[in-house]
Amino acid sequence: MVGKVLVANRGEIALRVIRACRELGIRSVAIYSTADRESLHRMLADEAVCIGPPQAAGSYLNIPAIISAAELTGADAVHPGYGFLAENARFAEICERVGLTFIGPSSGVIARMGDKAAARRAAEEAGVPITPGSDGLCSGVEEVKRVGAEVGYPLVIKASAGGGGKGMRVVRSEEEVEAAFADAGREAGASFGDGSLYVERYLDPLRHVEVQVLADTHGNVVAFPERDCSVQRRYQKLIEESPAPGLPERVRDDLLSAARDLAASLGYVGAGTVEFIYSEGEFYFIEMNTRLQVEHPVTETVCGVDLVAEQIKVASGEELELPESAFSPQGHAIEFRINAEDPRRNFMPQAGPVEFYNPPGGPGVRVDSHLYAGYRVPPHYDSLLAKLIVHGESREAAIRRGVRALDEFAVSGIETTLPLHLAILEDGEFRRGGVPTRFLEERRLASEGGMLRLLRAGAPSSL
Amino acid sequence: MVGKVLVANRGEIALRVIRACRELGIRSVAIYSTADRESLHRMLADEAVCIGPPQAAGSYLNIPAIISAAELTGADAVHPGYGFLAENARFAEICERVGLTFIGPSSGVIARMGDKAAARRAAEEAGVPITPGSDGLCSGVEEVKRVGAEVGYPLVIKASAGGGGKGMRVVRSEEEVEAAFADAGREAGASFGDGSLYVERYLDPLRHVEVQVLADTHGNVVAFPERDCSVQRRYQKLIEESPAPGLPERVRDDLLSAARDLAASLGYVGAGTVEFIYSEGEFYFIEMNTRLQVEHPVTETVCGVDLVAEQIKVASGEELELPESAFSPQGHAIEFRINAEDPRRNFMPQAGPVEFYNPPGGPGVRVDSHLYAGYRVPPHYDSLLAKLIVHGESREAAIRRGVRALDEFAVSGIETTLPLHLAILEDGEFRRGGVPTRFLEERRLASEGGMLRLLRAGAPSSL
Repeated sequence: MVGKVLVANRGEIALRVIRACRELGIRSVAIYSTADRESLHRMLADEAVCIGPPQAAGSYLNIPAIISAAELTGADAVHPGYGFLAENARFAEICERVGLTFIGPSSGVIARMGDKAAARRAAEEAGVPITPGSDGLCSGVEEVKRVGAEVGYPLVIKASAGGGGKGMRVVRSEEEVEAAFADAGREAGASFGDGSLYVERYLDPLRHVEVQVLADTHGNVVAFPERDCSVQRRYQKLIEESPAPGLPERVRDDLLSAARDLAASLGYVGAGTVEFIYSEGEFYFIEMNTRLQVEHPVTETVCGVDLVAEQIKVASGEELELPESAFSPQGHAIEFRINAEDPRRNFMPQAGPVEFYNPPGGPGVRVDSHLYAGYRVPPHYDSLLAKLIVHGESREAAIRRGVRALDEFAVSGIETTLPLHLAILEDGEFRRGGVPTRFLEERRLASEGGMLRLLRAGAPSSL
Repeated sequence: MVGKVLVANRGEIALRVIRACRELGIRSVAIYSTADRESLHRMLADEAVCIGPPQAAGSYLNIPAIISAAELTGADAVHPGYGFLAENARFAEICERVGLTFIGPSSGVIARMGDKAAARRAAEEAGVPITPGSDGLCSGVEEVKRVGAEVGYPLVIKASAGGGGKGMRVVRSEEEVEAAFADAGREAGASFGDGSLYVERYLDPLRHVEVQVLADTHGNVVAFPERDCSVQRRYQKLIEESPAPGLPERVRDDLLSAARDLAASLGYVGAGTVEFIYSEGEFYFIEMNTRLQVEHPVTETVCGVDLVAEQIKVASGEELELPESAFSPQGHAIEFRINAEDPRRNFMPQAGPVEFYNPPGGPGVRVDSHLYAGYRVPPHYDSLLAKLIVHGESREAAIRRGVRALDEFAVSGIETTLPLHLAILEDGEFRRGGVPTRFLEERRLASEGGMLRLLRAGAPSSL
């Protein structure tokens, strides 16, 4: 087993990894920027090293500083969390080179899945359905038009190096191809330093459904029951749940098999997520995230597993040995991302001191958060403050528990997405289940001030 | 279904009931003393009524004030929690009389089980093993000596109205009977206003094992997997777990059947707990608690049930309909009672402001607490500040998670039993499982300053 893990991250996910290390009897090393001196991840780790200034480029993305911190503290492994360097093949490769166990798949697999066009090919080779579209990259406008003639419009042009909707354009007819292709290429180049594009049939309405996989070095690959992450704002997930509401059993079986097949064909080791779009009974591969995801707790909750502990054990060469509960999922889990954003003012980012903090408790409630009363939210990082995960015997029970827990959850001093979540839980379409990814956007556009109306509808009782 | 529940309690258990009401869509009414104006139960309930001064006799035990608060707010049901009026047959009877649904068994059953000698007879009639001893009350010294001659020494003399070790004496030989009988009678009279005594064979070493039952008005009775509550200090439970470590499967089956049989024979309705002593493969009935218990969350955790919600549904006349998980318990759960007592200074009670409060989070952790940073612990009530419940795939995993979560749990401003729990988790005998009820006392008596040594051995790393 690895003996000391450097946690190359901050916030709630750094705490998550530190907790798993402690439970496994492994020492943990936190790294922190000067903006994170008062952070819980620094305080709760066994050791902590300051690695640079607030700006991520100088600290949490500063590979030499991180490698030095590992050497300085004698860490023999690195957990990258999510974001920052988690899908950086070069970082994984450097870790491999200097003899640090990178808790994740090999740099080769990260690189391959990081290239979205290559990932699409890998899925196709593994027999996983992909949306009809270009065979790899599109060299130019004529090729896009040829694909359009073949598979039909609308199409979506995507950046091969992409993610988060950057360098992406929907094309409704052949006339729109030329301008969209140029725009997408320019945006992709500016965002990723790589303007290469590919094209797919655009499906609408669609849902985002994904499968958590976990694989060891002994050839065992497990696929866990799917998560539905269709409640999104600008391609950022806000609410995730498991299982996906209303998914036919046959589709579920096929989905899990597809994810397992892809992971097996890649020789994948560690935790990863295969993302799909789901539309009217059919699903298609989108991409694979070669890391732990923000929403991993919903799977942990229904399956009674500790995915981070399993990541560490697998990275240490152990053979997967999951508890019985992993194969008999119980009930329904929903995760809410509580972000430092003001939903009443166009999600304006929030920073500053948290004055009062009261996380919910009681049955079926899990909170993963680095907040405490008096903590000052720095303006430099992503907006995730806390994850609330609720568990119930059914989706209805989980929703009722979610309303109760969100209502109890108090953060004062800064605005958060708490009231938005309460409003969503009051929404009839969400309650019925299976909303498409455009759900939130539609609610905003339905009428002027739509979001405000939505918020008013579900106004929480005040603490 | 009942429509509005008055919660006749305070602290974490009041919150617990309010949470269940909210999830069921039922309105809740808090009552509070003037010392509890700033308490979460007052803030989180839908309505709140101040019912009197800090002293419990004038507020939380003030039956007319509580009944008035229910009438004033239009509540149609009362949940008594545990402690205070939870096992007060007169209170239940008054509720019945004024048309309030008392969420618990009938006043008749409460009265019957509240008389310990009568409860012993009821158990015997239901075919539940009882310790050899007197047949009902002992009228005098000669009767005790006759029992001693019959079942052998040591014996234990107990108060029929008793509990918590009051009016209880262990007698090692016939010569000790006379003085012990007089002492016990005097103490029982002073404590309970009732000096009547009974006598049982004293078993040693013994463990405290208990079974949660739940019964509806339709004749369904469910017994959940047992809890082991042997880690006690002065007859007060400190740590509870489920399942009981090392209990043979046959004993478990018999225990659950015995509890089910007793509840069925009583026509019991609601949640209750049948308590047993367990010694070397045999178990014997001690008493039945006709209410929710502090440690109910360990059962909720392994069985995926919400006992408080079920209490409310059963009291509303609904038929029990438990989730599948209730019948396939998963893993192991342990509860730690975090009390406002200083374990380094003979458990001196603590009161005053909580300056910093950081409850643990992450997977497999549940916290039930009314604390928040800035809350002032009043000196008037019992010392329970928080319950930490951890869940793991095995007892070992739950213990590791407990160490992690206790270590993370920060309460500053007052001393708590947190360090004691950490010390106990480091103890080899506790880790092996199945410690007797005298475990903590032995550790203290083993050498001078034994508790301090125990505390030092498991000194937590500081936050």
